[in-house]
Amino acid sequence: MFKRILVAYDGSNGAWEAIGKAAELAKITGAEILVLTVYRHHSMLEASLSMVRGSDREGGSLDDTMRAVAREAAEEAKAQARELGAEKVQAFIKGGNYARTIVSFAREKGCDLIVVGSRGLGSSEGYMLGSVSHKVTSLTDTPVLVI
Amino acid sequence: MFKRILVAYDGSNGAWEAIGKAAELAKITGAEILVLTVYRHHSMLEASLSMVRGSDREGGSLDDTMRAVAREAAEEAKAQARELGAEKVQAFIKGGNYARTIVSFAREKGCDLIVVGSRGLGSSEGYMLGSVSHKVTSLTDTPVLVI
Repeated sequence: MFKRILVAYDGSNGAWEAIGKAAELAKITGAEILVLTVYRHHSMLEASLSMVRGSDREGGSLDDTMRAVAREAAEEAKAQARELGAEKVQAFIKGGNYARTIVSFAREKGCDLIVVGSRGLGSSEGYMLGSVSHKVTSLTDTPVLVI
Repeated sequence: MFKRILVAYDGSNGAWEAIGKAAELAKITGAEILVLTVYRHHSMLEASLSMVRGSDREGGSLDDTMRAVAREAAEEAKAQARELGAEKVQAFIKGGNYARTIVSFAREKGCDLIVVGSRGLGSSEGYMLGSVSHKVTSLTDTPVLVI
């Protein structure tokens, strides 16, 4: 029934459980899994946290660090999905807004299910505005499994 | 992986699609399906719509009508799930608040997945407060599939 499952992984416990559930679904449906870890660009973080701008070089190296951390998380999740028996697993990283990036990536890749943790790291940024999982379900027509 | 799937059915197109997806999942997992149609008690509707109170007898007959409509919807959804190949399907109706009733029923029955349409009939009641699917994911620890 599902052919291509996108799992959003941000390193949180909820996202870890989402990987497990996606792997179980992949095993019984034969679906492939796309793990996506979204990171914030340094410039976006900076704009939201401070008026102080670093030099371009500092910004670049911070972005590099965030990309590296995201890559490590995505690869960790990919390894876990394989460990749990999913056969086709790929890992991706993208910079940007969590929910919008997840939804546009799912559309771009033709995913027919999005799996997200109910309380990811990103949810702390906007408790009153709703969590990332709420935003994802609001922004997409693709079925969303909230773990 | 799933053993007992609760599908919330309110007669909306989204809920109809939720029945279809739940039936597919039931077929590949062997899970049983519990269809739940939640209706509002007359007294709750009345309180929210009007200051005019009907007699107890009128209230009673309105509640009876709403129960009958809910029963018809739940049975229609049950028939559809069976038509789509789900083997074990039961239909239930409950009066009360949509999201809270769905979540407490799922807990009571030991369901390991809740399937809901993303835009049910109930969502019009609280657009600014979030839809029923958002409320369900906020209120439960059980995985929720939003269709």
